[in-house]
Amino acid sequence: MSSNTFGKLFRFTTWGESHGPAIGCVIDGCPPNIQLNEKDIQKFLDKRKPGTSKFVTQRKEDDKVIILSGVFNGKTTGTPISLIIWNKDQRSKDYGDIKSKFRPGHADLTYFLKYQNRDYRGGGRSSARETACRVAAGAIARKVIKHLTKKDILIHGAVIQVGEIAINPRNFDWKNTNKNPFFCPDKKIIPIWEEYLDAIRKKGLSVGAKIFVEAKNVPTGLGEPVYSKLDSDLASAMISINAVKGVEIGLGNNSVDITGAENSDELRVNKNKKIIFSSNNSGGILGGISSGQDIQLSVAIKPTSSILKSQKTINDKYKNTNISTRGRHDPCVGIRAVPIVEAMTACVLADHLMRNKAQCG
Amino acid sequence: MSSNTFGKLFRFTTWGESHGPAIGCVIDGCPPNIQLNEKDIQKFLDKRKPGTSKFVTQRKEDDKVIILSGVFNGKTTGTPISLIIWNKDQRSKDYGDIKSKFRPGHADLTYFLKYQNRDYRGGGRSSARETACRVAAGAIARKVIKHLTKKDILIHGAVIQVGEIAINPRNFDWKNTNKNPFFCPDKKIIPIWEEYLDAIRKKGLSVGAKIFVEAKNVPTGLGEPVYSKLDSDLASAMISINAVKGVEIGLGNNSVDITGAENSDELRVNKNKKIIFSSNNSGGILGGISSGQDIQLSVAIKPTSSILKSQKTINDKYKNTNISTRGRHDPCVGIRAVPIVEAMTACVLADHLMRNKAQCG
Amino acid sequence: MSSNTFGKLFRFTTWGESHGPAIGCVIDGCPPNIQLNEKDIQKFLDKRKPGTSKFVTQRKEDDKVIILSGVFNGKTTGTPISLIIWNKDQRSKDYGDIKSKFRPGHADLTYFLKYQNRDYRGGGRSSARETACRVAAGAIARKVIKHLTKKDILIHGAVIQVGEIAINPRNFDWKNTNKNPFFCPDKKIIPIWEEYLDAIRKKGLSVGAKIFVEAKNVPTGLGEPVYSKLDSDLASAMISINAVKGVEIGLGNNSVDITGAENSDELRVNKNKKIIFSSNNSGGILGGISSGQDIQLSVAIKPTSSILKSQKTINDKYKNTNISTRGRHDPCVGIRAVPIVEAMTACVLADHLMRNKAQCG
Amino acid sequence: MSSNTFGKLFRFTTWGESHGPAIGCVIDGCPPNIQLNEKDIQKFLDKRKPGTSKFVTQRKEDDKVIILSGVFNGKTTGTPISLIIWNKDQRSKDYGDIKSKFRPGHADLTYFLKYQNRDYRGGGRSSARETACRVAAGAIARKVIKHLTKKDILIHGAVIQVGEIAINPRNFDWKNTNKNPFFCPDKKIIPIWEEYLDAIRKKGLSVGAKIFVEAKNVPTGLGEPVYSKLDSDLASAMISINAVKGVEIGLGNNSVDITGAENSDELRVNKNKKIIFSSNNSGGILGGISSGQDIQLSVAIKPTSSILKSQKTINDKYKNTNISTRGRHDPCVGIRAVPIVEAMTACVLADHLMRNKAQCG
Repeated sequence: MSSNTFGKLFRFTTWGESHGPAIGCVIDGCPPNIQLNEKDIQKFLDKRKPGTSKFVTQRKEDDKVIILSGVFNGKTTGTPISLIIWNKDQRSKDYGDIKSKFRPGHADLTYFLKYQNRDYRGGGRSSARETACRVAAGAIARKVIKHLTKKDILIHGAVIQVGEIAINPRNFDWKNTNKNPFFCPDKKIIPIWEEYLDAIRKKGLSVGAKIFVEAKNVPTGLGEPVYSKLDSDLASAMISINAVKGVEIGLGNNSVDITGAENSDELRVNKNKKIIFSSNNSGGILGGISSGQDIQLSVAIKPTSSILKSQKTINDKYKNTNISTRGRHDPCVGIRAVPIVEAMTACVLADHLMRNKAQCG
Repeated sequence: MSSNTFGKLFRFTTWGESHGPAIGCVIDGCPPNIQLNEKDIQKFLDKRKPGTSKFVTQRKEDDKVIILSGVFNGKTTGTPISLIIWNKDQRSKDYGDIKSKFRPGHADLTYFLKYQNRDYRGGGRSSARETACRVAAGAIARKVIKHLTKKDILIHGAVIQVGEIAINPRNFDWKNTNKNPFFCPDKKIIPIWEEYLDAIRKKGLSVGAKIFVEAKNVPTGLGEPVYSKLDSDLASAMISINAVKGVEIGLGNNSVDITGAENSDELRVNKNKKIIFSSNNSGGILGGISSGQDIQLSVAIKPTSSILKSQKTINDKYKNTNISTRGRHDPCVGIRAVPIVEAMTACVLADHLMRNKAQCG
Repeated sequence: MSSNTFGKLFRFTTWGESHGPAIGCVIDGCPPNIQLNEKDIQKFLDKRKPGTSKFVTQRKEDDKVIILSGVFNGKTTGTPISLIIWNKDQRSKDYGDIKSKFRPGHADLTYFLKYQNRDYRGGGRSSARETACRVAAGAIARKVIKHLTKKDILIHGAVIQVGEIAINPRNFDWKNTNKNPFFCPDKKIIPIWEEYLDAIRKKGLSVGAKIFVEAKNVPTGLGEPVYSKLDSDLASAMISINAVKGVEIGLGNNSVDITGAENSDELRVNKNKKIIFSSNNSGGILGGISSGQDIQLSVAIKPTSSILKSQKTINDKYKNTNISTRGRHDPCVGIRAVPIVEAMTACVLADHLMRNKAQCG
Repeated sequence: MSSNTFGKLFRFTTWGESHGPAIGCVIDGCPPNIQLNEKDIQKFLDKRKPGTSKFVTQRKEDDKVIILSGVFNGKTTGTPISLIIWNKDQRSKDYGDIKSKFRPGHADLTYFLKYQNRDYRGGGRSSARETACRVAAGAIARKVIKHLTKKDILIHGAVIQVGEIAINPRNFDWKNTNKNPFFCPDKKIIPIWEEYLDAIRKKGLSVGAKIFVEAKNVPTGLGEPVYSKLDSDLASAMISINAVKGVEIGLGNNSVDITGAENSDELRVNKNKKIIFSSNNSGGILGGISSGQDIQLSVAIKPTSSILKSQKTINDKYKNTNISTRGRHDPCVGIRAVPIVEAMTACVLADHLMRNKAQCG
């Protein structure tokens, strides 16, 4: 993985800035003869799209994807697939404060220090707008997975905590996640989150979130020890998403304070010689290779850095000043991360399916 | 990063099995004219070496490293550096139970499912013995860092939790970490851990651990957004270490339930135009690029999977059976992970120093 | 280098088909703060453009390049530079014969055999139209080279043979190359080539060509032995260009039948301690590393495969048939290869400048 | 491909200097469960071994290979295969002249300029001794090819020209190549070459050579357009071999001066729907993808640079001086290149078989 390219065999390169003319993505290495059209991709982009509820940014973007290459007569050809999404709502030509001031918690300062220049237009390349491209790549990755496995590897995510308020795991029901603006699997917590986030939003504050993602029906054998383990590639994928500050595989941190006997997923075979595990504390990965259990991981997302409250900062002349971010921003960026986390999971799995096929298939 | 190679410009490839004749490592891309001898590497290997206390495996290995290439007249030449460590204590030629049975929680089963073969000799390639090579590479990475930055980027780690017992952060003192068998920074917790782990060991049980690692004096500008961010490469490096199940950057999971105002590291410049942050919740990384603050991260390590207690498992004929692992094993593998976590941090930093120099230097 | 991406640090990814809506290119890893606008790129594209003389294809394309990202306020930002060129003249919607028949000498058959599908629209991805993207990337590579070396590394190419007729090396004068439609450095041969190629064209035939390319003022030390030598990367770059069938470094094939004494470039230092070579048979590269002499290489290009003469072929139903290619085609594709060969040379040099800077700078 | 690693999926990393303690190679990505032992590799190393006739260097090396990892119970496990060859005959501790003087035509000067250090011990890393590792990797590549294709892809090379004297193509018979010290396919030319080379040797001179290599039974579909075409990867592989100055695919340079009609390989299907080509001017590759015809290419190798004749040179203090290389050297290094050229061809094919399987298999 290097800079703006992700993956080894199924790989994609993204480009574009938040307020440039367009963003886009080139997917290379895709197997040929997979049915693909723009709708296949659009439905996932729509899930990530801004402006869908009052809990997410009000930026207006259709996020309409156009396929420019790599597909002919409705099928992938095996050549690079170029996708483009034109930016519509670049809004204010007047960037005001942020033109010269660094927003604390954002990448403004570090991009400036690294590249010695400043693209202040809505965060430029560091904006989460880039993640639309990941979602588009993920839509194609799902197609690749289905093509290669001949079955559905269900990849789905859910928000399991917003700020201080976690769901009740006993109420976890995947059927709920697409029926509310939070991708929340716990029906009972929804009104509580609504009230809580509304208050946060009105105060111009923000909170973090925790997301759980699961992939079901993953074949055994995916992952390349020792430096491209399935979990290390998933971790890299997750932490590369804006605002993600932690990733846990399976039990994760909770495996620290239990004993090896409790943590162990014991093994049995059933009558059909199918392997049955007594539990899935490992999150479906042992020694960096998928075990056939569900892949399960969770990510921690920090609170949105753009807040109304005035904060101490400096400007590009190294003068002390203050900043308060107005305008359209998410009280909890974590919510919109669900389709992105799912997409990155799909991309890692598609890549490793191809890699495993090459060496061990 | 691919399979057994880590890094892009400063990169190393490891090879070897737990009970094969030797393990080794080829470091490629190392800058020339850096003073390097075997002692520079050996001192870090000695820190990781087994058999140093009753809390770690009793396997007897000198772990004596030999440089086979890439160094001439005491300096690196710029050509590949080949390191070899001969395995001494391969012990029992009789592998007993584990010859045919899969140890729960280990990679035995998944390697078998992926590669359709079984190297039962002490875990073969999946053994943590491989990590000696990482430590050796890390020793050279430290030299590279010093060579490129002309200063010491202090990279050090500490065990901050063993099983249920965390240190008291108020007692954290780096000076303690090298004075006890636990790399523990909290003097007061040491006797408690000793008693606790001794009991765990005697019962044939095991527990997990949490490790904190910090790199001080890291230059700004390291990390390549958006898919080779400094934190995503660090996360990948950490999760690639045996038994690591979680990684957190800066505040990590604890950033979820606070507000953006609390999480924000505010900015000021002092009289010397040096940037001062009000806090370091970000762990020294913003937008995937080092900010000049200390890099801080923590990893969660699961309990040792090899335990005395009899566990349900299957054998390579897909028959149900039980297994109990006897012999020399760690009650808490997490302890020995400290030098490994440090080494991987050093390798990521060396690689990104070279990458940043290439594009922005 | 993998599939549709070229280079390691200065790297570009191309996409698009001959008769799709557009072609394009993403350049990643470009150093920041280099002045760049569309004109800088356009002037090289204009040199490669079709339809400029009767000796090259009559396809009408403006080849107008648009920068979509990576440049802000007239300078590169260090983030990916996305370029797009819209296809204008996709001409006949009726592809006639070539819709089902494989053109001998073309990639039609092998793409079909590999990918099990057929993009008959003007060769699809295998069309030399892709090389416009290389020329665009090369224009940026030249800027990078100038930025990094603070001097002009003059990279220029010339056609030194068309079909059976080679230039007279004694008449070689770089000043001529941009004054005739053949990039020919030998003024006297031009009318002969005109007559010769006109006859070839009228007969519906085609011939090959030989191109010489030279890079002056290249710093010493570029190239990474032993598998990314400067010459092996140049060779890979050249052979990747459509229709190139041979590459020679320095004396190339002519070094076979002379003695080591004749082939040797002897060494002297002058008064200023500058190294002077008695000759440049090596083509400026020794052991895969630039020696400071001019980089010199030549490539052999086969005759255009599309010819009027009826040829035996098969169709996609595996039936025997015949084909004769009508329409706009080049009597000698080699002519238009000059800017492409120059561009690939520039890209290899830019990449290796960055790589050398990272390890040895 | 980067520095000391070759290949993408089937990849190997070599290390070691001519007069260091050992040289070696790590093969990563090899499919599991392939029978492999040291003899499988040794037989190819023996073919390349020095000291086998008076026409090649008299250095005495057994070149005995030892497998250190990646093979268990006689089969590859899928984990990295580490090979080591101990250097025996490092001979003179007194390097005499070459300790401070740069040998013209060698990499001495450019390594010094790039790395700012000097490993004068027999050329250090730039020595052709490194190619033993390529031959070892090639032996394993052949096994991989057989494993994946279930058939023999016969890969063989022959010397077709020594200095001024080319073979008569009409006398070409593969059966001869292993029966003479020149890998010569033309029985009648052997005594002529013997006399010719003996004279060259006695005069302390040297000449170049041309090698032809062919791979039969290669499946269709290998090669990844547009930057990892089968021919561009082969060209890169060939030019990376010491002293190679040119590579031609199929007709190569000879395709320049014929017409498209003559150059075209026309197509027919026979009764069994097998594709039959009227000729193989393309060398078995169209558009960078294997066509099913034999892969054919040739390489040009410059005369050995080490010669008895006194040559002008400079030393590492930048003083003018002269050098004459005494001792054991080849009058024609090209001869020993045959097994190396074969090995690199095998490695490229193994890699592309795996790559093609991943995307299109």
